[in-house]
Order: sequence, then structure tokens, then C-alpha cells
Amino acid sequence: MSTFGNYFRVTTYGESHCRSVGCIVDGCPPGMQLTEEDVQTQLTRRRPGQSAITTPRNEQDTVEIQSGTEFGVTLGTPIGMRVMNKDQRPKDYGSSTMDLYPRPSHADWTYLEKYGVKASSGGGRSSARETIGRVAAGAIAEKYLRLAHGVEIVAFVSSVGNQFLFPPTPEHPTASTNPEFLKLISDITREQVDAPEFFPVRCPSKEATGRMKKLVEDFRDRKDSIGGTVTCVIRNVPSGLGEPCFDKLEAILAHAMLSIPATKAFEIGSGFGGCQVPGSIHNDPFIKAGAAPNGSEKTSGFPKPRLTTKTNNSGGIQGGISNGAPIYFNIGFKPPATIGQAQTTSTYDEEEGILEAKGRHDPCVVPRAVPIVECMAALVIMDAVMAQHARQSARSLLPPLKATRPAGETIPLLAE
Amino acid sequence: MSTFGNYFRVTTYGESHCRSVGCIVDGCPPGMQLTEEDVQTQLTRRRPGQSAITTPRNEQDTVEIQSGTEFGVTLGTPIGMRVMNKDQRPKDYGSSTMDLYPRPSHADWTYLEKYGVKASSGGGRSSARETIGRVAAGAIAEKYLRLAHGVEIVAFVSSVGNQFLFPPTPEHPTASTNPEFLKLISDITREQVDAPEFFPVRCPSKEATGRMKKLVEDFRDRKDSIGGTVTCVIRNVPSGLGEPCFDKLEAILAHAMLSIPATKAFEIGSGFGGCQVPGSIHNDPFIKAGAAPNGSEKTSGFPKPRLTTKTNNSGGIQGGISNGAPIYFNIGFKPPATIGQAQTTSTYDEEEGILEAKGRHDPCVVPRAVPIVECMAALVIMDAVMAQHARQSARSLLPPLKATRPAGETIPLLAE
Amino acid sequence: MSTFGNYFRVTTYGESHCRSVGCIVDGCPPGMQLTEEDVQTQLTRRRPGQSAITTPRNEQDTVEIQSGTEFGVTLGTPIGMRVMNKDQRPKDYGSSTMDLYPRPSHADWTYLEKYGVKASSGGGRSSARETIGRVAAGAIAEKYLRLAHGVEIVAFVSSVGNQFLFPPTPEHPTASTNPEFLKLISDITREQVDAPEFFPVRCPSKEATGRMKKLVEDFRDRKDSIGGTVTCVIRNVPSGLGEPCFDKLEAILAHAMLSIPATKAFEIGSGFGGCQVPGSIHNDPFIKAGAAPNGSEKTSGFPKPRLTTKTNNSGGIQGGISNGAPIYFNIGFKPPATIGQAQTTSTYDEEEGILEAKGRHDPCVVPRAVPIVECMAALVIMDAVMAQHARQSARSLLPPLKATRPAGETIPLLAE
Amino acid sequence: MSTFGNYFRVTTYGESHCRSVGCIVDGCPPGMQLTEEDVQTQLTRRRPGQSAITTPRNEQDTVEIQSGTEFGVTLGTPIGMRVMNKDQRPKDYGSSTMDLYPRPSHADWTYLEKYGVKASSGGGRSSARETIGRVAAGAIAEKYLRLAHGVEIVAFVSSVGNQFLFPPTPEHPTASTNPEFLKLISDITREQVDAPEFFPVRCPSKEATGRMKKLVEDFRDRKDSIGGTVTCVIRNVPSGLGEPCFDKLEAILAHAMLSIPATKAFEIGSGFGGCQVPGSIHNDPFIKAGAAPNGSEKTSGFPKPRLTTKTNNSGGIQGGISNGAPIYFNIGFKPPATIGQAQTTSTYDEEEGILEAKGRHDPCVVPRAVPIVECMAALVIMDAVMAQHARQSARSLLPPLKATRPAGETIPLLAE
Repeated sequence: MSTFGNYFRVTTYGESHCRSVGCIVDGCPPGMQLTEEDVQTQLTRRRPGQSAITTPRNEQDTVEIQSGTEFGVTLGTPIGMRVMNKDQRPKDYGSSTMDLYPRPSHADWTYLEKYGVKASSGGGRSSARETIGRVAAGAIAEKYLRLAHGVEIVAFVSSVGNQFLFPPTPEHPTASTNPEFLKLISDITREQVDAPEFFPVRCPSKEATGRMKKLVEDFRDRKDSIGGTVTCVIRNVPSGLGEPCFDKLEAILAHAMLSIPATKAFEIGSGFGGCQVPGSIHNDPFIKAGAAPNGSEKTSGFPKPRLTTKTNNSGGIQGGISNGAPIYFNIGFKPPATIGQAQTTSTYDEEEGILEAKGRHDPCVVPRAVPIVECMAALVIMDAVMAQHARQSARSLLPPLKATRPAGETIPLLAE
Repeated sequence: MSTFGNYFRVTTYGESHCRSVGCIVDGCPPGMQLTEEDVQTQLTRRRPGQSAITTPRNEQDTVEIQSGTEFGVTLGTPIGMRVMNKDQRPKDYGSSTMDLYPRPSHADWTYLEKYGVKASSGGGRSSARETIGRVAAGAIAEKYLRLAHGVEIVAFVSSVGNQFLFPPTPEHPTASTNPEFLKLISDITREQVDAPEFFPVRCPSKEATGRMKKLVEDFRDRKDSIGGTVTCVIRNVPSGLGEPCFDKLEAILAHAMLSIPATKAFEIGSGFGGCQVPGSIHNDPFIKAGAAPNGSEKTSGFPKPRLTTKTNNSGGIQGGISNGAPIYFNIGFKPPATIGQAQTTSTYDEEEGILEAKGRHDPCVVPRAVPIVECMAALVIMDAVMAQHARQSARSLLPPLKATRPAGETIPLLAE
Repeated sequence: MSTFGNYFRVTTYGESHCRSVGCIVDGCPPGMQLTEEDVQTQLTRRRPGQSAITTPRNEQDTVEIQSGTEFGVTLGTPIGMRVMNKDQRPKDYGSSTMDLYPRPSHADWTYLEKYGVKASSGGGRSSARETIGRVAAGAIAEKYLRLAHGVEIVAFVSSVGNQFLFPPTPEHPTASTNPEFLKLISDITREQVDAPEFFPVRCPSKEATGRMKKLVEDFRDRKDSIGGTVTCVIRNVPSGLGEPCFDKLEAILAHAMLSIPATKAFEIGSGFGGCQVPGSIHNDPFIKAGAAPNGSEKTSGFPKPRLTTKTNNSGGIQGGISNGAPIYFNIGFKPPATIGQAQTTSTYDEEEGILEAKGRHDPCVVPRAVPIVECMAALVIMDAVMAQHARQSARSLLPPLKATRPAGETIPLLAE
Repeated sequence: MSTFGNYFRVTTYGESHCRSVGCIVDGCPPGMQLTEEDVQTQLTRRRPGQSAITTPRNEQDTVEIQSGTEFGVTLGTPIGMRVMNKDQRPKDYGSSTMDLYPRPSHADWTYLEKYGVKASSGGGRSSARETIGRVAAGAIAEKYLRLAHGVEIVAFVSSVGNQFLFPPTPEHPTASTNPEFLKLISDITREQVDAPEFFPVRCPSKEATGRMKKLVEDFRDRKDSIGGTVTCVIRNVPSGLGEPCFDKLEAILAHAMLSIPATKAFEIGSGFGGCQVPGSIHNDPFIKAGAAPNGSEKTSGFPKPRLTTKTNNSGGIQGGISNGAPIYFNIGFKPPATIGQAQTTSTYDEEEGILEAKGRHDPCVVPRAVPIVECMAALVIMDAVMAQHARQSARSLLPPLKATRPAGETIPLLAE
């Protein structure tokens, strides 16, 4: 369905050619300063037309808050948000070649199979435009997490095609054992990712950006497309988040990330490469937290866990629950389905023919996917924070028992 | 939480040392023949102690149905199921070395951080024993899917450490472009996977089984552990399943798979390797369904989609919705955290020390993970089938419109 | 939260002084004709300022569909809807006497206790204006139910203060045993309720309307207010709806109705009065359906239940499941909290004082509540229909068993 | 479905003739002392066979905790509970007269319509036996609420047939304006309700108990049955509970209560009678909390609201949110459907005939309903407490703003 989250819950609407796209955010904590500026920043980073290697359509994507705030402060009631569509006229169906063919590997065919309605925009709700609602919602979640817990969420492009920031090697089948990678994710900021030297790829290495940019341009010039991966790190996450057994934190992250259009793969921490690492190396030994080398500096007032891990192959999650170390994961994006090259395929009416997509299309989506990944990560963490708040507050009111740890030692319970 | 699914909904309970483990299945269609035999088969395949390379504890794991059936037929009411624990006595906490240390990369520490209670079994609910409830529920879902739609779900081991069934190559960075792989997943049966020649690895290649078995034995002998991957294929899935935008079919599969203990990664169709394949090759052209080379033979009476795809890099899902082609995916399992080797780590009380785990532990979990993966896959497909049934039945009662496809052409709506 | 329903799911947003109010409807069946006209009718019936006995503010309340339809047909994707607020400027807080006082029996105080934010509109989300979103969503549900199942939903005012349409008597402590009442609910139409002779009370008896109108005018003139009851009947409901044990159909109806502002009470069928009727009279004997005296004429093609009941003290629901007979229920609305009379109460700052509400307020809400009740009823039935569709479609694909009834004999499974 | 609650979530299973009935409680706060004794008390109060006016079958109903506790302390993981059925053999269907007839006003017919399966116990899941799971779960919730917030929940019988504890009068059309009633609900304890002098009716007035007992005996002797009402009060509820707009606290209470078998009506506070009371009298003026005449003594350490109300026609809830005053409500129970008298009705096969139910049946269910009502009330309040905990904890970590109230002034946020 179009709802994500239980306690901080976003519901989105809208497809390419309707009046507007938007969302309702339910469950936002009251008393937080919030204006449209807070949301616009990520919408602007998501926007198409930012460079020659992304789609050149120039959509404005200006958000209007409809409800849920007053004098710039959240009321605790649902926050409605809306972004107008520029091209609201559904096109006259059947007028062009593209209307005869379901685009290969696109959602045109499956939307028709599912809903039985042949809409002008094919699988219109599968459009990247749908992601506006979730980005807007995620921007609110992220603001809360930053204010309340100092959480930092940074995503970047880690590969395009066969060009990697950290290519797998026999020594490091997974970047999680590579100190350089760990250093990067402990430091990287969003400002760095957006720095001109990494433009427009958003890969935080000038050298790799060069290789990747070149590759995308090659594919663009051939009217072809190519995939890539985005890596995301979340720092300063409170320990104790995640709701086993079915709602383990990595399970919800995977759910969130694979709901982003064009995604095919997700890995947390050591990921697939970690399957090749012996347990004796893969295990993250515990150490006293003070000496934490990948030390997440907490900016809010709640107690840090007393232990941390020396290595972080777990990616900050163990047994489905955050341990306070940086959470990081990779998402694989397939090559965009809409390409200018001629493709032999079938019409809706089972006739073989040749489809050549008109217009300009993203030859590679990963740069624009960066803010979408960050916003989905924020939604996941926000919901998990609220679930754990409910548990911990409830627990803190019980008479203390010998067999348990004081509630105050785990998650924050600060009365002002 | 401990609930999975909306229409076909399973809720599980139980940890290692309590009285029993089990589940409640709510929403099972009424009127289906169901006895404990139907459930026991997969529980027995999941059981530890099946071979020298899996953990030698011999648990019986006999299921008892508590409710929801009468004279061997489902009533449509909740089905309670229970499996007794053999060792129900929580051990005397603090009596052994292992109790002083949270096991590295295990859930002991994070469970304490989350719940604040130091249980005798550490992160007891993170135990593989928790999976009994979901396997039992999945076995019911699978029976329904087989009876009603001819759905076939088969999982197998596709790698152990660096030993692969289909190693990535420059030509085939993903197995999805490899005809041999596509042939295998279109044919493979559960009986083949369990054949003596592939015992105990469950990798459907005698040669690869040999390599993998050797590798696991090496790790076992070194008191170390190693990870691996499981590949799963689901054949004869009706088209139109999956609930965009947040509940795309691959997103729910990812959620389900990453809720299985010890998983770190998930990829659908071409997966991470597909990021390296040009769009012009990666796209799956449509062809008339009759000629489908990866032809899924439907055994139930509902209409096959009129189109299918020539290739299947999509893994049977496009735009988050099934297209009728085989759905396949890989799951990465990390090396088991509990190893016999000495590890330098910290006690709960922040003292550095050396932990040597006692007892015998699985050096590699992937063979036993096979039925768990299958059962989670069944739960996902079952829930998606019921959601689409609700939509299609509702739609079929509306007056027909020109712009839409007849409801009867898509999903089954067969009155008897 | 602000979401209602599982399969046909509405999420609302908006309070009195924000930019707009509205909703997202997720799960609407695709392929249904739908335009803004379909929704506007009920919004207009709900609007204030319709008569001298309701509040004279004249709000336009024009709905704009944002998404989910194309060329007037539903796509199956979320339907966004929006109604602008006329007065979008939050008032300058603290400028008037009313701002010093939480209004007695209003939501001002509890909203502050809950959210901690003192909004300009006090408990702004508790305003009747919030109901716009649910009425818009309910209008869509109702259209579907009428088209697909011939469902008819009609609500009317059954009492104002101590003036009753069917006053309880020793013979009929509940109207459910009164043949006149049963006749009325088997026939009454929305057009009749809105007829000029019953204006503006919406009580389908000229005589009772006169008594009620007089009473409301008395209370209005005294700057006081008075409560009343609304009775609602739903005809042609398929049998088999309702999801025991917790989601019995009457439980969901009660939930829906008591979520309407100012409601205090709900009764289904014989209700509280039925507690005084002996079981031997209260029981509804079964008879062959053809002879059904309270005969619901089905207009769609699905099989009527073979049995119906001779009487209908059950109100069409038995064991939490609809039996095909008319469903009817009463809802009690308290006197509006905002009155012009001086009230001795306390300020937010615990000072005793006298509050006199300015402006004109509804002296009685029941006439305007009629469309709100109808729309909530539609949301409940729609969701229950889809849940039962999912079950029945799933069941219809199983091999038939002797112990069960053919699926086709119960709920509709019509392929076109 | 069979699940109730979001944060504190109970899922039940079981019908009359299966192996056992039970439930899984998910989300219970960790670190609470809990043994089977805590649960057994309410199960025993619910048990049939307690007196000559309730059904004489003597079921033991001994609960076994399966999981979720260790050494008598909750782990925070799901708590499985089970009560064996004494008569587990489904009877040989069709052997008796009763099997030919769906019992009038019972669930036999609608269960068949819904599920299509003719079970030996008819609408077996609609049996009072189903309530065991919810009573067990509610007992846990209640223990938490008592320990953490000093919440007291007491239900009692307030009418049987036309015999009332507080009959409606012209002066007091609702008991909510009657000082005697308000005094009773501010004081009444569960021990008093169970006192020998009120046995077996559970109406806290010797005189009324006499009248009611006599009435039930009359109906029993005539092989007839009669309904009644239960009143429930919840004291010491924190202010701020309830989740508008759809999940107002009274809406969830109504949902919970109307999910109890045999219920037909619900009213909160002044209820239906309040519709007849002028707003000027019905409104509850605010007063400084110290002087609260219906003073709820809080036993836990969180701040009392600064204001309370002089009267309590609202029943402790305003705008869907608790205000700290006692919450009270009535539930109407219909006369039991199974009676010994001969009834002319129809067989399943549409033949008219005469049904005479065998065996002994409850002539009136209200005395046994008392603990069921209390337990459902506990489930509602528990879930609302956790939702508000999540919000308040989240809010307490935000930088303070002028426009808002300090988080610490509202709901408890006590670190130990």
C-alpha cells in the first residue's frame, strides 16, 4: 500500500500526470520547529535536471505544507504536504508509438496486469515522481532525529557499472573489513558529497567521480543506460532500535530501500562479501565504549552504550537491533529501463515490433537516488525510535528488579 | 514486532529455554485439508542435527495443532501451533564463562540494550529456534499456494564462502544472464535439492557440493565458521502481485528474508551484478506468452498473462508487481557468530578477556536455512495473493468500462 | 491515528485554520467511474450554514481530486482529495477572552495535555471541519457499494433532546420490536430525508420534525444547546461481512461512529432497550429467504442467503457477521460544548472566571451529522467487503470438500 | 481479525472443541514481575459454573505461560499463554436435533455464510470460550497499569432486564448527573463487587442484587433468558490518552466492548441519556485540580493535570482524549440466544421446524461478563498509554519552544 511506518507514518499519493503529488505525515512529535524550507532542501536535491548526466526536465517541485503546523511549530497533528505537477494533462492515449508498447523492464505491463486500467502514463505511480512524497516526509523525520539525537544520515554513490569506489578484492571481499572505507563513513558529510568536485556523480572521490562520469557519458551517448550502487551511513543512532523478530532493523531498512523504484539489491554491513569472511574475522569483538575507534559522537544527552565494537562488520545492527555503531548499507540500482536504443519487443496486442523511446532519459539514476535513500533511512530510524521510546518509557515506570538494567541507562527518558 | 502479513498473518512466540515455541496463523482460507503432517515436513527439514556439518543437537520439533481445524479441514479461524522445547529449564545464570561475555556479533548485547533484562539465553528470541513458528506458518501458506495456483517454491545453497555454484564472471557479473542458471531455476525441485548426492549441503551440483562440503569441514575443524548464500525460486506466481508503492513485492520479500537470523543481504533478479549490465541487455523484451522459453506451467485454471519476457533479469517482478515469470532471489548469510576459537573481547562489565564458546555449533547455517527461506517466501506470496484477490473481486463487480481490461483476464475469479 | 480501514484505507489531515483539509484514499478498486461530483454531494449535505438552526457560517467546501483518477476512471492508485480552508490565518493567540479559557467539555484542554502545544484553534483537529476528509472518502466507498452490491445507506435524525421519533415504551423498550420502525428503515430513502417537509431537521416525520425544530429553536434562543440521536440503516449488505473475534462488524461500526466528534453512545439492533426483552422474543427465528418480510432487494448478481430472519432484533449482524438483513444502529450526540451562555469555569492558568462564547454556534449537531454517519458506515462496509472478497476468492480456488459449502453460494465471485 | 492493539498487541486463538484456547501478547514492557497467578485470578472470575444462575459446566481454565518470562520476570518478548479445553472431541456432526438448526440469533448461520465450513460447534469461535485469551492478556495489561500508574479498573452489573441500579428518571435521564452514581464509581472496588452480599449478580447494592437475582431465576425457570448492562470505571488514567481523529479513546473502548460476544450497545459518560441534558448543564466546567471532588488519587509519580472538571458528564474523555477524571461507560448485553424453550425456526435446509436447545445455559451473561469488560478496558488503556509514551518521550528530547508546554508537565518520563 502507500503507507510506511507505524508510529511516524507517511502516506503518499500521486502519479506523473495528475494534479499534484504529496503525502500526509502522521505521528510527528509536537513542538518541533518546521517550515517548508526544512523540506525543500531534500526535494531540490532529488529534482531532475540537475546536470547533463541526469534527465534534463526542469521540474520546480516546490512544497506547500497544508496542515499540522502553526507559526512554524508542529502541532502533533497530521502534516499534509503537496507539490504541484507541471504537466497535469494526461496525454491522449494511443497517439504515439510508445503507447503501443509496454516498455521492457518498466512497470507499464505489470500495472495493467494488476489494475486492469491502461493509464496514459503507463505505470504512472511507478514513476520517480512518486518519490516526492516520501522525500518530503523523510526530511521531517531527519530533522527530528538530528535535533533530538544528533543523528547524521549521509548517502553517496559507491559504484556506477563496473566502476567502484571500493572494488572488492581477495583481501577485502567486502568493504566492511577495509579501514579506508570505515574511515570514510565515519567522517563523510552531506556537504562533502555535494561538493563541486564530486558533481554530478555524488561519489566522494575525485578520481572515482571521474571514472564514473565518463562511464555514464558513454552510456548516454550510446542511448543506453547503466546501474550503480548507493552507500548510506547513519551515525549516532541510539542503541536498542529494531523490533524483532519480523521487524529487525535491517529487515525494515531492506523493505524501505527496495521500495525505491529501480532497486534490485540491499546489503547491510559486510553484506554478500561477508559470506566469504571467516567468522573469526567477521565477528566484531566488544570493547569498552570510551575507546571506540569508529566513535560516534552523540550530541544529545542520553547515555552511550557502555560497550562498542572494535570492528563493524555487523553494520551497527546485531540480532536485528542497533548497537550504537554506525549503520551502513548498500543499495543496488538497475540500469534505467527507458532507453533511446531500438528494442525488439512486443506490443500490448502481442505483435512483435521495434520500440525506440523518445525524449531524454536518465542514463543512470544513482546520483538522484542519494536523497531518496537518505529520506527512507530517516523514516525507518524515526519509526524505530518511537517504538523504543514507548517501550522504554513504559519500562521506566515499573519498580526496579535485580535481574534488569536501570531504564535510564539505555534510551533517553529526559523530562525537561 | 512478532507479526508478519496483513491478510494471512502469522504471530510467533518463544525463545530457547521457555516451555514451547509456536505461532498463530490468522486468515487462512477455510475449507482446506490440513493436518500436522503438512506442517511437520518442513519443520523436520529445518531441524538441527541432520548431518556432521550442522549442529548435532537432536531436537524432535513435533508440531501440535491447537485450533482452527476440524476433521482435518481448516475452519477459517486462527490456527494455533505449538512445538515443545526439550530443554525448558533456563540455566542458572552466571555459572559459566559464557555468561560473563556478550558473544561477539551475537544478539546478547543488543537484547540487553533493548530490553534491559539479562535473560539466561542472552538474545534468546534471536535463536534459530524462533524460526519454528514461521516455518510452521509458511508450510500452511505453501500448501494453499500449491493447491490453488500450482505455485512451486524451491530454495538451494548457491555458495559457501568463496565456493560458488555460479561464480560471477566478466561475461556474467550476475547469474541472471547465464542460460545455465535460468535452466536450473526453471526445473529444480525440492526432491532434487534433498537428494543424497547433494547431502548435506543442499547445493544441486555434485561437484559444487563437494567443494562446499570440504570448505565447511575445514572451518569446522578450525573451530571457525563461514557464511554462504541461498537462492530461491518461486514458479507459477500469478501476475499482478505486490502492493506499490511501499509494499512492492521485492520490498516485502527483502523484509521477510532479512528477518531471518544471520542474514546480511538480499538481491532480486539480476541483483548487484545487474548494476554492471547495460540497460540494452538488462531489459527483458516482451514476447507473446505462448513462446515463453522460461515457461512456467500453470497448473490451476486462471488465465496466463498474454505476454511474457524473453529474458528474466527482472526476476519476475517489474515495478514492484509480479509479471508471471519465475521470481528468484539470493540471500546472504554471515558466518555464525558462535565459534569455538578463542576471541579477545569484553565482558558485560567492560573487562577485556577471552571467550571460548563451549559445545558444538553450526559452522555454516545455509543448508538448514533452505526451508526457512522457502517458508518466508510462501508467507509473502500468500499475503500478496489475498490482497490482489480482494482488489480483483471488488473490481469484477463494477460495470465494465472501455478503458479497462476485463477483470477475468487477470487474476482468477472462479466460482465453483 | 488519522487512518481508518485496512484494505480501503483513508488517511485525513487538516484543522480549522490551516491551508486545507483533505485525505488520501488508498485501495479503491480500479476501473470505477469517479468525478468530483460524486464526492461533492455529501460534502454539500455536511456543510454548515444550511438553515437557521445550524451554524450560519457559509463555507463552500469544494473538493479537488489530486490523483488516482484519469479521464474520470479510478486507476487503483491512491486518490488524494483537498478542500481549501476559507479562513487560513491562525488567529492572533491570546487576543480575546475565549483564548484565556479552555472551553468546558471541548477538546481545548485535552489537546494541550496531549500535545503540549497551545494552538490558535484550541483542539483544532477536533473541529467538525476535520470530518470533511472522511466524508469525501466515504462518498467514494458508497459509490462503489451502490454500483457493485446495490447497497443503500440512509441516516436520519431519530431524536432531539427528549423529542423522539419512536419513543421507548413499556411494550417496545427498543424500536427493534416495533413494526412501524422496521417498515420505516426498510423503505426510507435519502431523498425523503432531505425532503422540504423534514427540513432542516432531517427526521422523516413531519410531526416529529415540528417538535424537534421547536426544541432546537428554544435552545438556540436561550444560547444553550441540546443533543440528539441519529439512526442509520444499511440495506443490501452481503452476508458474511465482519472479521471476528476483535473486528466484529458491530465493533468496527461502533469504532467508526464514536470517532465522529460529539458522539457519546452507539447501539446496534435492539441496543440498550433489547436488554429488557426476553430471549424468547429477542431471538430472530430463521425463515426461508424468499418469504423475507424485511426483504432486502439485491440489485447485483450475487446469491442471496437461503435463509433470512423473521424479526431483526439483531440489526443484521449475528456473531459479529452480517446475515444479509438490514443493518441499523443509533448514535447519540451530546449537546454542543460551545454555548453563548455565561459559564463559570477556570482559565488555563487555574483562575476561576466567566466564559461567554462569542459568535454563532450550532445549537444541535444531529442534522449535519447525518451525512457524516452515512459516510463512516460506507467506509466500514467497504473495508469488510474487501476482506471477505479476499477470503472468498482464495477459498474458491481450493478443491471442493464435502464438509464445506460451495464458495459460489456465498459471496460474489463473478468474472465478467 | 484476531489481533487487538498496536503497541501492546494480543492475538487469540481457539474455539470450543479444539485442543486449547490461548493467546500471544506482544509488546509487554520488559522487567515486570509476572507469574501465572497474576493471570489466573481474572480467568477464574470469568469461569462458568460459579453459581446457580450461571451455566453449571465446571471448566478449570488453568493458564500455562509458554514464553516471554524467565524467573518470573517479563523479557519484553512475546508471552504465549494456553488454557486446555476439557472437551476436545468435536462432536459427531449431525447426530442431534440441534445440528439440524442454526440457533436463532446465534452465530451458527453467519459463520457458515462467512467461512462456508459447517463446524461441529457451529460458530465455535463466537463461543464465550474465545474470551479466555483476551482475559489472560488483559490481566497482564492491568497489572502493568496498576504498578506503573495506579490505574484501577472496576466493572459491575448495573441492570438486568428492567431492574436497574440507577433507573433513568426525568431528573436524571443519565446517571452521569446523579451524585450517588458519581460517588459509587469514585469508590467502588473489585473486592466489593465480589462480596458475598452481591453474589452472584455482582451488582454493588444488596437491594438491587435481590431484584436482579429474582428476575434471572424467573427467566431461568421459564427456560428463557434476559439481558443486562455492565458499568465499568477506570480511575487514575493519565491525561492525554487517545489518538484522534479515528482512534479517539472512546472509539477504541467502543470497539473493544462491542467485540465481546452478546454486546449490543456502548455509551461513554452521559451516553444516550446525555442527549436530553442541556449543554449548559452537560458541560463540565474546569476547576483547579487540587479541589477535585471526584479526586482520583494518583499513586505513581507523574504530574496530575493542573485542571480537573467539576462535573464529569464527559466520562473522563474530551475530544477523544482522557482528561484525568474517571472514565466510565456502560455496555448492553442481549439475552443469551440459546434457550431451552421451543422455538419455531428453520433448519439449515430451509425446512420449518421446532428447536429446543438441550443442556443448561446461562440465562443471563452479565455477571460473568464483568471480568471480560475489565480486561478489554485494560487492553485499550495499555495501548493508549504506550502510544502517548512514544509521543511524549520523542517530544521531551526537542529543544523547548515558547509556544509549548514542558513535556515533563504532562505524561511521566521518569528515568530511574
